[in-house]
Amino acid sequence: MAAYKSDIEIARAAEKKPIFEIGSKLGIPQAQLAPYGHDKAKLSAEFIAEQTDKPDGKLILVTAINPTPAGEGKTTTTVGLGDGLNRIGKNAIVCIREASLGPCFGVKGGAAGGGYAQVIPMEDINLHFTGDFHAITSAHNLLAAMIDNHIYWGNEQDIDLRRVTWRRVMDMNDRALREMVSSLGGVANGFPRQNGFDITVASEVMAILCLARDLKDLEERLGNIIVGYRRDKTAVYARDFKADGAMAVLLKDAMQPNLVQTLENNPAFVHGGPFANIAHGCNSVIATKTALKLGDYVVTEAGFGADLGAEKFFDIKCRKAGLKPDAAVIVATVRALKMNGGVKKDDLGAENVAALKKGCSNLGRHVANVRKFGVPVVVAINHFVSDTDAEIIAVKEYVSRLGAEAILCRHWAEGSAGIEELAYKVVELAESGQSRFEPLYPDDVSLFEKIEIVASKIYHAGEVTADKAVRDQLVAWEEQGYGHLPVCMAKTQYSFSTDPNLRGAPEGHIVPVREVRLAAGAGFVVAITGEIMTMPGLPRSPSAERIYLNDQGYIEGLF
Amino acid sequence: MAAYKSDIEIARAAEKKPIFEIGSKLGIPQAQLAPYGHDKAKLSAEFIAEQTDKPDGKLILVTAINPTPAGEGKTTTTVGLGDGLNRIGKNAIVCIREASLGPCFGVKGGAAGGGYAQVIPMEDINLHFTGDFHAITSAHNLLAAMIDNHIYWGNEQDIDLRRVTWRRVMDMNDRALREMVSSLGGVANGFPRQNGFDITVASEVMAILCLARDLKDLEERLGNIIVGYRRDKTAVYARDFKADGAMAVLLKDAMQPNLVQTLENNPAFVHGGPFANIAHGCNSVIATKTALKLGDYVVTEAGFGADLGAEKFFDIKCRKAGLKPDAAVIVATVRALKMNGGVKKDDLGAENVAALKKGCSNLGRHVANVRKFGVPVVVAINHFVSDTDAEIIAVKEYVSRLGAEAILCRHWAEGSAGIEELAYKVVELAESGQSRFEPLYPDDVSLFEKIEIVASKIYHAGEVTADKAVRDQLVAWEEQGYGHLPVCMAKTQYSFSTDPNLRGAPEGHIVPVREVRLAAGAGFVVAITGEIMTMPGLPRSPSAERIYLNDQGYIEGLF
Repeated sequence: MAAYKSDIEIARAAEKKPIFEIGSKLGIPQAQLAPYGHDKAKLSAEFIAEQTDKPDGKLILVTAINPTPAGEGKTTTTVGLGDGLNRIGKNAIVCIREASLGPCFGVKGGAAGGGYAQVIPMEDINLHFTGDFHAITSAHNLLAAMIDNHIYWGNEQDIDLRRVTWRRVMDMNDRALREMVSSLGGVANGFPRQNGFDITVASEVMAILCLARDLKDLEERLGNIIVGYRRDKTAVYARDFKADGAMAVLLKDAMQPNLVQTLENNPAFVHGGPFANIAHGCNSVIATKTALKLGDYVVTEAGFGADLGAEKFFDIKCRKAGLKPDAAVIVATVRALKMNGGVKKDDLGAENVAALKKGCSNLGRHVANVRKFGVPVVVAINHFVSDTDAEIIAVKEYVSRLGAEAILCRHWAEGSAGIEELAYKVVELAESGQSRFEPLYPDDVSLFEKIEIVASKIYHAGEVTADKAVRDQLVAWEEQGYGHLPVCMAKTQYSFSTDPNLRGAPEGHIVPVREVRLAAGAGFVVAITGEIMTMPGLPRSPSAERIYLNDQGYIEGLF
Repeated sequence: MAAYKSDIEIARAAEKKPIFEIGSKLGIPQAQLAPYGHDKAKLSAEFIAEQTDKPDGKLILVTAINPTPAGEGKTTTTVGLGDGLNRIGKNAIVCIREASLGPCFGVKGGAAGGGYAQVIPMEDINLHFTGDFHAITSAHNLLAAMIDNHIYWGNEQDIDLRRVTWRRVMDMNDRALREMVSSLGGVANGFPRQNGFDITVASEVMAILCLARDLKDLEERLGNIIVGYRRDKTAVYARDFKADGAMAVLLKDAMQPNLVQTLENNPAFVHGGPFANIAHGCNSVIATKTALKLGDYVVTEAGFGADLGAEKFFDIKCRKAGLKPDAAVIVATVRALKMNGGVKKDDLGAENVAALKKGCSNLGRHVANVRKFGVPVVVAINHFVSDTDAEIIAVKEYVSRLGAEAILCRHWAEGSAGIEELAYKVVELAESGQSRFEPLYPDDVSLFEKIEIVASKIYHAGEVTADKAVRDQLVAWEEQGYGHLPVCMAKTQYSFSTDPNLRGAPEGHIVPVREVRLAAGAGFVVAITGEIMTMPGLPRSPSAERIYLNDQGYIEGLF
């Protein structure tokens, strides 16, 4: 590997074009782009509104097998495919999520692709970027402050101190803030109560920003947030504290999609980044819809494996935003398939075709699942140097038997030149008109049935279990008019089941729904099937200890 | 008043020039300005470093009498004077502080000047601006997370859980966060301990950013922060957690001064905003020093009245940064002087020359105090429509008897045209070469003596009292090598004394030092003389309830 440059070395060597030039290729006048430095810009709401009547380009989803510690390279493939499509003459735009700042200080690693398939400037994208997440943090915490302030000044809404569900957020891995008692210290500081912080990406405000059509819709959804319950169990909304207007003001700029470029100077929108467990895990609707107006092709990704990411992309984002994906790419690596076949991480360097074939069951399940949404599929084998010919042939043969194609992609090492074949295949699928996109379930079945449909059709589970309290809660929400909402499954990303160690393609397992949460502003019901961590901690030796500015003023240790 | 436009109406009607054009007037190439939108930009560290050998322009401090609810208009006068100097042919640059976002949602009001003397874009300046305060929040809280994480993983440094002094910060008025118990919820969340949040402007990181010369100095100071004490009472530094490098990385862009423009398209640096009680209350050293290289004149301000703001500007900022102010403007209003003379706020509309003359004692004291630093003084009477001729004459006569001049300024209503006379006077003072700037006390007297010198010479106090514990603490710091630091007085801004109701020019009062704090990174010792609120709360009906985006997408209710 010594011959390879690191991601950051490659990114720094890139010949960036001025961001106005990237915008100009998309027909965006300079005045409609608010620059952030010379290599980032926000697209104006005015310009976006003017595009409404234009036809849409093709929408391509990049998803993956279940993640393993071996790494799959979903973002890398998304970026690579965007470059590949541009290489073969398409006007393609990449749409990916913004990175959370907190985790960068825990474990080394970025979220802007890798190798020769990256979006730049990667340092900025992984740190403050254009300030969107800070704005979300502010808006979220303003609402929290207004709630406690309301209680302090007499609690006219009669909100039950024990039932305030709106926590605070910080974009930091900080386990000390998970659970606390706030408002201590006497009369002047309010009424002590149990409280806590989540990481910013887990905020419902993040999910709302990513699903809102425009600023008006954003403000409406913010008002719909349920922040807690009164003594009589009725819901208290953000609107009851008149917080929605000020929150929208704080989010005004954050709602504008961020334009950056790939290493090959092709356009990329990097916007929004909701959790892929308690939220839907896709970049913003406004970025995707705008990109569809400006490009022939839009390549986007969804969080985790296809069981979580693609399902939510289809059932929440596409359903709600009226998007019609034209094709899906499922990313797999030989290494990750071998892990799914039982190989330990340390043994991944050795050829093991038998384990690989066994692990392909995971890939096969995802291919079949995505087809259930009516979307044609191609598999991208993201090439690693340790892959052997026999292993690659085995994957290709397996996928071929499914009536699909697996294409070896070398974009990490070669950029767009290494992913041309996939690009041509994607164009063929998308332009064939064979996509017949439909969400998995209709709006009008019960919330519990929606969970059951996802569990049986996608997870191949035998049963969904839930306490009476959980079932009653779902029924109560249906009676309150929330029955039409889609469900957002919070499940381990490592398995089709709720057991993270159950790799491959398990069948007949039980999906226990421990808890349900109503995200009334975002517009979905979260079904929680295990321990979901909404505030990560730092490891024993966090990467922050090794991050610094070198003598040239460059950031070291972040990637 | 109906004929007058509101601040926001005036600001929106302004004909802004592209920020590159403003920079170009100062000789800044486009490549050295990182734009944030079309009307804000950050100046590169590279360009700043290149200016070192250039001669300095003249430095003018705008300070004020003790603030009253009547308002003095210090920022308005700073901006107006900058425009006035440009009007009379000087290349003048305004240097002011950034606004804190939190308080904007409490009480209506902005921090970008007023009337026809404003910096724009005022909405941005009062909200997220270029993200500096968010970066400070992140850097501060990263250190906090690393401390609790260190304790969680075994506490190798043996930091005493009861003596962690580093709190967390948020740019929000949120009293519920003042005092809390964190790390509740069991083993996975760490060791429960007493904890709390301050508002971001109270962070030592803010003070450090505003005093640091460059990124290297910033990182050094961040490492010097004392975060708590071990069981053996020795100090634990941010450096001990290896947090300084990552904090500097988070602050890399925040260290670059922000360039904006006045309503009259003259350049203004808006950068940094430390508290004026527990910190020194001035804009950043880097912005001021850079402006001195780029302009003939730099007009800057300091927080609160001259007893706090000017004293700290001289004794902390100028001392440490090697700045030599050439003249000072003391802003007064007829209304505020009448309040100092005992008139109630509701009676300020009526002429009252007797009360005015009585209140002039406050102004006279400030004039004499500023002269103690060797800096020549002019008084600016910031005109209000209710001022009568007799009142204005009375102020002028009073100041004239002090051997100085009071000049009526109508910049709020008329912009630079209304402040020409002051501009000429400032040039006369500055170019006379009469300034003989010296800090009030030398570095090498004891910390307690420094407090006594400020209290006697500036506050005209009779005595400084302090418990043995406080005095012992100061001696201990002297023994640890901190004796050379200046003192940063935390005192009510409403009076020369520690009693906020004691207006005018009290004499012989007692200054009780209740507590001392060492800001080892910022480089000063804070002497606290009363209740200092480091986390404000929201009022019963916060302005946030009335802030919203109107149908044109403009922000309403913020100003």
